[in-house]
Amino acid sequence: MQLHSFFNSSTSYRVRIALALKGLAYDTLPVNIRAGEHRAADYVANVNPSATVPALIDGDFRLGQSLAIIDYLDRTHPEPRLIPLDTELRARVLELSTLIACDIHPLNNLRVLRYLETELKVTPQQKTAWYRHWVAQGMAGVERLLERSNAGPWCFGSQPTLADVTLVPQIANALRMDCDLSAYPRSLAVYEHALKHPAFAAAEPQRQPDYIA
Amino acid sequence: MQLHSFFNSSTSYRVRIALALKGLAYDTLPVNIRAGEHRAADYVANVNPSATVPALIDGDFRLGQSLAIIDYLDRTHPEPRLIPLDTELRARVLELSTLIACDIHPLNNLRVLRYLETELKVTPQQKTAWYRHWVAQGMAGVERLLERSNAGPWCFGSQPTLADVTLVPQIANALRMDCDLSAYPRSLAVYEHALKHPAFAAAEPQRQPDYIA
Repeated sequence: MQLHSFFNSSTSYRVRIALALKGLAYDTLPVNIRAGEHRAADYVANVNPSATVPALIDGDFRLGQSLAIIDYLDRTHPEPRLIPLDTELRARVLELSTLIACDIHPLNNLRVLRYLETELKVTPQQKTAWYRHWVAQGMAGVERLLERSNAGPWCFGSQPTLADVTLVPQIANALRMDCDLSAYPRSLAVYEHALKHPAFAAAEPQRQPDYIA
Repeated sequence: MQLHSFFNSSTSYRVRIALALKGLAYDTLPVNIRAGEHRAADYVANVNPSATVPALIDGDFRLGQSLAIIDYLDRTHPEPRLIPLDTELRARVLELSTLIACDIHPLNNLRVLRYLETELKVTPQQKTAWYRHWVAQGMAGVERLLERSNAGPWCFGSQPTLADVTLVPQIANALRMDCDLSAYPRSLAVYEHALKHPAFAAAEPQRQPDYIA
C-alpha cells in the first residue's frame, strides 16, 4: 500500500496510526499541502478527487477521507479492530471520533487558518483566539463523553479504537498551538498513554520522511 | 425512539432522512439551537454531552453525532441499509459522506457564522463569501467523486445511501444561501431525484413540528 500524506496533517496522522496499529507496511508519498500539492491537477484527477490528504492506494483502489480509509482498513485488515462490532460500544467510539472529526478539526486546519489571514485579514491574536475557541468548545464535549464512559487507559477500555486514533492528533495539534488543556484530564491521560505505544509513536509528525522542522 | 432535533439543522435533517427511509416512528423533541437550548445544563448532562443536535434516544441509550446515529440505526434496523456492506462501495459512500460532513458542513453551521459576526465583526458580504467559498470548494470535490462513480439516480446507483443522506441537506442549505450550484449537475440531479422520495420529503425542515417560517 501507499499513503499520500503530509507530516503535519492531522487526518494523515490518523491513518498513519491505523496502519501502524494493524502492522501494515506502506510507502509514504509526501504531498506538501503548504505548497498546494493536494490541488495539483494530476493528483486531483488520478489520486484524490477530494483534493485533500490523506489518500490510500491499495492495488487499483484509491481512497480519500481519513475516516473512510480507516473503515476500509478495518474491513480489509480487521485485526486489531479499530471500530468495534459491539453495537453500543461502536456507537460511542463513532460519537467521540466524529465529534473531533466534524466539530473540532475542520475549523482549525490549514486552509481555514489561511482564509482567516488572507481573506478576512484577522490579526495573529484573532487567529489564535479562533483556534483556541473551537478546541475549548470541542474538547469540553470530548471530556464529557469520556467522563460518561472512560475507564482507561484508552478512550473506551483496554484497547485502542478509532476514538484514540482521532483524539491523539487533535491533542497534539492543540498542544502545538499552546492551548490550555488542563480542564480535560481524561483526554490528556489517554494522550499520554498513547504516546508510549509504538504504533502511535511511529505515526508522529516528526517521525515522517517529509518532516520539516 | 425520540429525536432531539432542530428543523433547520443539517445534521438533524440527515438523521430524519435515515429514520424515514427505515420507516421508523419517532417523536421529535425540538431543541432550538438559535436560542442556545443545546447548551442547557440538563440537556448536556442528561442527553448529549456533545452539546449539539441531533441526539437519538432509543430506550436507555442516548447517542449524539449524526454519523454515529446513522451507523447505529444501520446496525439496529438494517433495512434498507444506508452504509453498504460491499467493501469498495462502502468506502466510496463513506468517502463522499465524510467529505460533506467534515470538509463542508462544519465551516458553515450556525455557531461558526455567529462567531464570524460577533467575534470577527465580518460584514454581511464577507459572511456570504465565506459560506460560498467552502460550498464551492467542497462541492467541486463531491462532483468529481460522482463523476468517477455515479450512474444515478442516487449517488451510488439504484438505492439511496448515506451519501445521499448527507448530500441532500448540504444542497438544501447551499440553495437557501443562494449559492450557484450550476457547476455540479450530477449533485443537483441526485438532489432533484431525492426530493421526490417520500422519506426525503418527510424530513425536510418545513415539514417539522418546530419549523419557523
